Amino acid sequence: MGEFDLIARYFTRPVRHAALGVGDDCALLAPAPGMQLAVSSDMLVEGRHFFADVDPEALGHKALAVNLSDLAACGAKPLAFTLALSLPRVDEAWLAGFSRGLLALADAHGCELVGGDTTQGPLNICITVFGEVPTGQALLRSGARPGDDIYVSGTLGDARLALEALLGHIAPPAEVLARARQRLERPTPRVALGLALRGVASSAMDVSDGLLGDLSHILKASRVGARIDTSETTNLIAEKAYSTGASDVFDSKLLHQCTLAGGDDYELAFTAPPALRAAVAAASQASGTPVTRIGTVLAEPGLQLVDAQGQAAENRYASFDHFSPTQSG
Amino acid sequence: MGEFDLIARYFTRPVRHAALGVGDDCALLAPAPGMQLAVSSDMLVEGRHFFADVDPEALGHKALAVNLSDLAACGAKPLAFTLALSLPRVDEAWLAGFSRGLLALADAHGCELVGGDTTQGPLNICITVFGEVPTGQALLRSGARPGDDIYVSGTLGDARLALEALLGHIAPPAEVLARARQRLERPTPRVALGLALRGVASSAMDVSDGLLGDLSHILKASRVGARIDTSETTNLIAEKAYSTGASDVFDSKLLHQCTLAGGDDYELAFTAPPALRAAVAAASQASGTPVTRIGTVLAEPGLQLVDAQGQAAENRYASFDHFSPTQSG
Repeated sequence: MGEFDLIARYFTRPVRHAALGVGDDCALLAPAPGMQLAVSSDMLVEGRHFFADVDPEALGHKALAVNLSDLAACGAKPLAFTLALSLPRVDEAWLAGFSRGLLALADAHGCELVGGDTTQGPLNICITVFGEVPTGQALLRSGARPGDDIYVSGTLGDARLALEALLGHIAPPAEVLARARQRLERPTPRVALGLALRGVASSAMDVSDGLLGDLSHILKASRVGARIDTSETTNLIAEKAYSTGASDVFDSKLLHQCTLAGGDDYELAFTAPPALRAAVAAASQASGTPVTRIGTVLAEPGLQLVDAQGQAAENRYASFDHFSPTQSG
Repeated sequence: MGEFDLIARYFTRPVRHAALGVGDDCALLAPAPGMQLAVSSDMLVEGRHFFADVDPEALGHKALAVNLSDLAACGAKPLAFTLALSLPRVDEAWLAGFSRGLLALADAHGCELVGGDTTQGPLNICITVFGEVPTGQALLRSGARPGDDIYVSGTLGDARLALEALLGHIAPPAEVLARARQRLERPTPRVALGLALRGVASSAMDVSDGLLGDLSHILKASRVGARIDTSETTNLIAEKAYSTGASDVFDSKLLHQCTLAGGDDYELAFTAPPALRAAVAAASQASGTPVTRIGTVLAEPGLQLVDAQGQAAENRYASFDHFSPTQSG
């Protein structure tokens, strides 16, 4: 099967919103009047972002999900995406599964595939996603103010728990691993929450490389500091039952590593003034997405971790860095 | 050097046109009123699109040039691009050269880097480029009409000549190879010509996989056929002097392979009604880009090749296909 047959068979569908889709030199997008276009690119590499034997349908889902998560963090409504794909060979079963997972999530968000590229080479998936947001209403990293509450959506650390198990570092019960693995391989982009937080959150970003590391980007962009209550964050791991069980493989250190610096969470971390707590709760309810208040923005720079008693907890948790050979923790 | 330092050092510059650039979850673009956004993605893989030892500055130039060529083919004015980069390791000399070549071409076209991604993995460069075009004025593949003239810009086949030499298939004189290699490694996107052809060309695309193969996409999209005069196309190779010399390595077959199915030309192939020949000439002059009339659009499907005497020439020239292990010719 040649390149053009491949594109036609798996990735060409009639366009709906875009003016022109797959099959010309460019796709044409026309944002509505008063709208800005939010753009983000993510590249996924075998062995770095996923295992070689991952279910291709889950991989198709995840490749788009991590991009939609960036739109969510900006409060942008998904519109369209391009897909550039490097494949070692044409494997029709793999392509069928990958495109099924990819396009199912795309359809769920009304986000259409408008163009891209295919080539032969080591497996590499690069998606660029487009969303729209009313001019001036995008959620940025730079808006956090001293006194703001700090929130995180959903749960944290489950994807890292699954990764540690798949790497053979821990051996959780099968049903725990199955649930955690679902979070690792099929993350849910918090698009609805991002939209609901427009005009409410003072800053936002998605948690992809670990809570503390990603939060530090907000703090740096906003020129502020923060205090985080680790007794709140450790409660956020969905597989918490496992952590309170008899097993000693999931110790306190690993629990903190997973929740504070796990990576691959694709939750939203955001800030909002205390006066808007009811509005945050309403956004959470309207989007069907739980949110937890985990700390406070401070005027002085730096990230302080405290325990339930307000005592300083050591910050030993580095975020995921795609060029660091090892992670601290 | 970590991922974030790397982005900051080589790829972060103040944004000018975009509302928000590198450093947030998304970049924000605001096309002017009445403008559509043209979008294209291209992925370049080591060993497939470039040799491992290519000059990184030339590679930076080419990675953006092939994307700007897609904008040119649509008649879109370059605005911005995202860069996703997978690197085996952080090599500062390589990154300095790559970013220098990339950003020099970007600056020449007023096209700014607004975001992207970096990761560790086999070398892979994925650029998504954004341009703007007045609504309804994009040059498409689907507008060719029977009777239209067929044109191609610049020269054809020089990049393929260089590739054949670098692969050791032919051994041209050093000065011939040097000029041809310049075309292979530092292609010139025909942006100014594409803009000048708005309202003149009935269809257009860029020649990246070989003239005949790419032209067949126009014919298919427009539901027409074409007759091409190969005596015109063989004259288009810039290194023609070499082909008429005493050497027997650059034979007639290779000459046709290079000009008709060479690949990596990044010229524009386009059609226009005969009534607009003066307008085509004016567009050529205004943009400083030579164009050559090479054939005619026919109502009946199919691509006929004729020689200088109007006699049928055999069409043995397949275009480049990124999933075909060998090329015919």
